Amino acid sequence: MPQAKPNGRREGPLSLLRVEPLSRRPAGSHTLVTLDGDGPLTERLYRGLRRAILDGRIVPGARLPSTRVLSADLGLSRNVVLVAFEHLMAEGYVEGRAGSGTFVSRALPDAVPARRPRTPAIAAPGRARAALSVHAERVNAIAPLPPPGARIRAGLACDFRYGLPAVQDFPQSLWARLLARRAGSVSVRTLGYGRSLGFEPLRHAVADYVKRARGVNATADRVVIVSGAQQAFDLIARLFIDPGDRVVVEEPGYQAARQAFVAAGARPVPVPVDASGIDVSRLPRRDRVRLAYVTPSHQFPLGGILPLARRLELLQWAGAVGAHVVEDDYESEFRYGGNPVEAVQGLDLDGRVLYVGTFSKVLYPSLRIGYLVVPESLVGPIAGLKFLTDGHAPTLEQEVLTDFITAGHFERHLRRARARNAARRAVPLEALKEALGDEATVSGENAGLHVVL
Amino acid sequence: MPQAKPNGRREGPLSLLRVEPLSRRPAGSHTLVTLDGDGPLTERLYRGLRRAILDGRIVPGARLPSTRVLSADLGLSRNVVLVAFEHLMAEGYVEGRAGSGTFVSRALPDAVPARRPRTPAIAAPGRARAALSVHAERVNAIAPLPPPGARIRAGLACDFRYGLPAVQDFPQSLWARLLARRAGSVSVRTLGYGRSLGFEPLRHAVADYVKRARGVNATADRVVIVSGAQQAFDLIARLFIDPGDRVVVEEPGYQAARQAFVAAGARPVPVPVDASGIDVSRLPRRDRVRLAYVTPSHQFPLGGILPLARRLELLQWAGAVGAHVVEDDYESEFRYGGNPVEAVQGLDLDGRVLYVGTFSKVLYPSLRIGYLVVPESLVGPIAGLKFLTDGHAPTLEQEVLTDFITAGHFERHLRRARARNAARRAVPLEALKEALGDEATVSGENAGLHVVL
Repeated sequence: MPQAKPNGRREGPLSLLRVEPLSRRPAGSHTLVTLDGDGPLTERLYRGLRRAILDGRIVPGARLPSTRVLSADLGLSRNVVLVAFEHLMAEGYVEGRAGSGTFVSRALPDAVPARRPRTPAIAAPGRARAALSVHAERVNAIAPLPPPGARIRAGLACDFRYGLPAVQDFPQSLWARLLARRAGSVSVRTLGYGRSLGFEPLRHAVADYVKRARGVNATADRVVIVSGAQQAFDLIARLFIDPGDRVVVEEPGYQAARQAFVAAGARPVPVPVDASGIDVSRLPRRDRVRLAYVTPSHQFPLGGILPLARRLELLQWAGAVGAHVVEDDYESEFRYGGNPVEAVQGLDLDGRVLYVGTFSKVLYPSLRIGYLVVPESLVGPIAGLKFLTDGHAPTLEQEVLTDFITAGHFERHLRRARARNAARRAVPLEALKEALGDEATVSGENAGLHVVL
Repeated sequence: MPQAKPNGRREGPLSLLRVEPLSRRPAGSHTLVTLDGDGPLTERLYRGLRRAILDGRIVPGARLPSTRVLSADLGLSRNVVLVAFEHLMAEGYVEGRAGSGTFVSRALPDAVPARRPRTPAIAAPGRARAALSVHAERVNAIAPLPPPGARIRAGLACDFRYGLPAVQDFPQSLWARLLARRAGSVSVRTLGYGRSLGFEPLRHAVADYVKRARGVNATADRVVIVSGAQQAFDLIARLFIDPGDRVVVEEPGYQAARQAFVAAGARPVPVPVDASGIDVSRLPRRDRVRLAYVTPSHQFPLGGILPLARRLELLQWAGAVGAHVVEDDYESEFRYGGNPVEAVQGLDLDGRVLYVGTFSKVLYPSLRIGYLVVPESLVGPIAGLKFLTDGHAPTLEQEVLTDFITAGHFERHLRRARARNAARRAVPLEALKEALGDEATVSGENAGLHVVL
């Protein structure tokens, strides 16, 4: 019964066809057609026949057994076989000729896709990386860090990892309410494609905020909404870096930014950092430098706040060597001692600073909304890059964030979060002082979300 | 009164300081300090003094007039001047010496940032583009298309542009409900950083859907959630393209995908398209080709559905020349005639196909969620690239989409949208036939969201 027996209606290559019933499919047996995979019988038969055709076990021009014979051989209802045949016919695997049965389509290529391609495919073990671009090879060599917080242990009493704000402070129910309002009043305009540079009212709200709170020289038309600070680094790298270009980075410094530049082909030039941030006297003065990446508000990871004199020297240096400054205004929102220090960008008269901010630390990381403030001449090139990179940031959460900022919730949240973080940091700081006395130095305690021992 | 008169307490460079009261600021007059900008008087004075220091009009080491004198000269309350001085001191512009007044900080660089930098800054008109990378120059040369629908005219009775699905069919209130539920139950896990490859349950839901509906050979660990199909093209371009590499594109074809490859340095090799999609007999067979970008479900823009024989030939060709196939399964969800045709990826035995899908057309474009199904060996490199590009896709809408798919809403929505689109397209198609008869040919009417005359 499992073997298709020859009979009067079978001719030529038909004898090649062996079908096997559902109940008998030993692992090693040679069969031409098997019921393939899970699901309804008709789909399993369809897939089995299809696989036999694609593998070349049933060749173009071969006639399939009649549905009557096949259903009897397989112990399936004739209807099941009929539907499978129709499916194969609709997709062009087989064709029917009036009065003479069903044939494997002659339009199919003679040789089906070779199982052993002449050139190694990406699936071939060990050869995969040989097929990648130089860019991808660089990324592989970097082995980018997993994002901080990728593996959060539930119930951790006190989370000492960096990069994670106190998301429990996030005013979730307020946010959910704003979200519900916007989601309930969507329009063709907000559902359709948005602008590459971002949702217009959000660009205004961000320009207004950074001008007021950070002394940034910003107008809405020079603000670009990006998918977190990381996308800002990536866009800047693509905008400026040709392979071999030098980029000044802080040492120690923020790896994911450095990696974005290195991925684009940059040669990093590490400049040491002290308790006041990057040591500007050590900036390279002979070589051409393309970019300098700095975290002046709260150096990552040492926590220093770059003094005004260094800020001015940095700008002076940038002008002298023709570099541009990427100012990552990392955690500028959290300060616990001293007065606010305005952004380097606000001191810049020459359009040398690209200012990067993010809402990840002050709202929540998975929101993925950051911003860039750039000189006017860069707006066009960045719009093109951003469009080809991912179109634009999702609209809905840009709208909600706009509401959140313009209604004053953002700055209220900042004030509250600052107060709570100050209280939170006081506990371990006191404990450290008591336990270690003068044996350890705490740095970076006047700003940001972490300290260094 | 407006002129600061010499008195006993002023020495040395102090005579350089001229202050001017609020009421008198003639445009052309030479003044050293002006009340700068808007806002409270204390901030305007702070900014005026700061600007004078930064511009070098008051040099490092110079003593400022006492708060008493300055307040009298300016006609401001002494408290206003005191606060401005404190602000300047906190930021390091000035320093106080016990008993001897307030001086411009000697720590400031001698030469303040030059107004005329030695090398042209990006702000310099006409020189801006000279400062960009080769990559950015390519993007500039492409002049990427604005996204379709960037300028929607309200009240348009019948929108004939391509690229915009009928967003009015989007089940907005259902979506808003799911969104509210997820937004109301956020956790540290979902607010914190997510995985670069996407939200795990969504990757499972997508794998399940494309396997079932599109015949794609997918498992969740080979699904990557991206910011719309455009980011899939960008990631693939970065993964595979070195400058000068050849990429087969359809002619005519989808510009934004082609541009992503060209931006990465690819040389496009256009292959003509007929009513059945790309003409596989015209594929280049001598040169090394890195990628072939195709839209087999509904060729963009002609609408042809690539027949099975061509799909197999395409795979055979890819194996022979060592190319990989980028299958943009563009609008596969909308079919009005004929049976579904399974994805090329499902026919691929060698891991040569990178399958790209998006929710932009079937849900709404500004959601910016798409997906990639890749061979296993590419998962690691793509995770690294995606991490350095923008971290990961925003979590909340990935969660909502997961709920939408797993509860069956997605496929119900698809069925309804298909029926409505079929009715919608019938009207203009009938009208066209009546008006033009045999004088025009309509193509692409069996699939997708547009037709070509």
